[in-house]
Amino acid sequence: MANIIVAKTAGFCFGVKIAVDMAKEAGEKLGSAYTNGPIIHNKQVVEFLEKLNVKELPDKSVLKEGDTVIIRSHGVPPKTERELKSIGVNLLDATCPFVKKVHDKVRQLAEEGYFVVIIGEEGHPEVIGTLGHLEEVGGQGVVVENFEDLVKKLPRRNKIGVVAQTTQNEDFFREAVGYIAENSDEVKIFNTICDATSVRQEEVKQIAPNVDIMIIIGGKHSGNTQRLAQISKALNPNTYHIEKADELQEEWFEGKEKIGISAGASTPDWIINEVVEKIKQIKGV
Amino acid sequence: MANIIVAKTAGFCFGVKIAVDMAKEAGEKLGSAYTNGPIIHNKQVVEFLEKLNVKELPDKSVLKEGDTVIIRSHGVPPKTERELKSIGVNLLDATCPFVKKVHDKVRQLAEEGYFVVIIGEEGHPEVIGTLGHLEEVGGQGVVVENFEDLVKKLPRRNKIGVVAQTTQNEDFFREAVGYIAENSDEVKIFNTICDATSVRQEEVKQIAPNVDIMIIIGGKHSGNTQRLAQISKALNPNTYHIEKADELQEEWFEGKEKIGISAGASTPDWIINEVVEKIKQIKGV
Repeated sequence: MANIIVAKTAGFCFGVKIAVDMAKEAGEKLGSAYTNGPIIHNKQVVEFLEKLNVKELPDKSVLKEGDTVIIRSHGVPPKTERELKSIGVNLLDATCPFVKKVHDKVRQLAEEGYFVVIIGEEGHPEVIGTLGHLEEVGGQGVVVENFEDLVKKLPRRNKIGVVAQTTQNEDFFREAVGYIAENSDEVKIFNTICDATSVRQEEVKQIAPNVDIMIIIGGKHSGNTQRLAQISKALNPNTYHIEKADELQEEWFEGKEKIGISAGASTPDWIINEVVEKIKQIKGV
Repeated sequence: MANIIVAKTAGFCFGVKIAVDMAKEAGEKLGSAYTNGPIIHNKQVVEFLEKLNVKELPDKSVLKEGDTVIIRSHGVPPKTERELKSIGVNLLDATCPFVKKVHDKVRQLAEEGYFVVIIGEEGHPEVIGTLGHLEEVGGQGVVVENFEDLVKKLPRRNKIGVVAQTTQNEDFFREAVGYIAENSDEVKIFNTICDATSVRQEEVKQIAPNVDIMIIIGGKHSGNTQRLAQISKALNPNTYHIEKADELQEEWFEGKEKIGISAGASTPDWIINEVVEKIKQIKGV
């Protein structure tokens, strides 16, 4: 009897899942909605949502009272939220809870008198939102992307507060806080890096050695999916990296009863479900 | 006309200077005193103080009411201070103000709910004193000397506080705080490393290129004095490293009018003064 194990952390991270679900629900129940920027960089998801009349907002000028606008997982500056509200739109906030935590922490640091260093990408939507929250409470801060940036921008202050963009690379984070601590009297750091990627990899490490075959779903060019497949293959040579259900081959499953599945960060649930259904069909369960 | 410039940061660091002065004064005014451990690792200073009847305390059992005990710059745990007071001794506290700051900071961190990581040497008198202050307020913490220590001892806690032994090497401090921040949610760091050594080097960098000859005083085997001489020589080839005034040679000073002087951390003022006087004699000023 075939046994299919789908990793709990397969596919979308928590924040993206909430945002896509919200967009889907808005389309289905309200008939139309805008998202402030693309909800996710996945063509199939965007096409699916467009069929539900959920589209990226081209410009605020097209909005009229009563329109629905979904704030995507990256979040926005409070000023943007106020502007949208002043138009009288129906605002649905899908800001990732982990991003909201960054907003809270920069506010807290500013209120406690810290100059805030945001370790992340200048101009990234998430960072723009975070800077907006810092500005809102009259705080001061800088964004640093790399070591050169840090050396140039770190001021000589008594109290330095640090947060990171949720998707920040850990190597630079570690290097940056070391330098900041060495060059400051007091440093308060909130490690706001989201561990979705590492947790997803951990779960594959748990599942792969205990199954007969492992299926990793996600774009062939997706870096995080490739890495997931690599890790899986190292622990179980019967690992296959596919993009969609129709790539599955019956012979892979001959004599294989325990089947493990995980998926990269931009793989929607319905693609995972299609894969599960196809495997059930192959195995006759 | 010869011009002799003595670096302000030459010789003893601030904390050691206070402790040695206090010991000298106690000997001169009170006729005798004990120090809890050697005040400094410099034979000439210890011999000088012994002549004033200021000696290292062999054991608490020798103490009687009214004896004078000098707490040296490293500080002590509050418990030790209470024990000495309970004997009824006259307690003179020469704990370095920078070490006292570490005591205050570990107390603050513990009271704010942080688990405290002390980056320093296990069993070092300064660290023993700091741990005593942490214990005093019911705080929890560990001492980490190297990376292996850190990986083994860092607990998985929400809030980690960090301080350093005042003489901690900056390279490991930087590495340690990076690792701690990467593996914790919230980290509050007080950089309590004393910059006496780097400030002393900085001053030599300022003086050496602007004088005709540079004299660096300190033990030939003293690491910090050797480094000071190296830095000076790189900026002024007319650099001489001596231990005492009688090593000075008249010909070094021929045609040299601007004379710079600095000294390593364990060089007492009177040795520096002897050097200055000898140079004045050579130059006839």
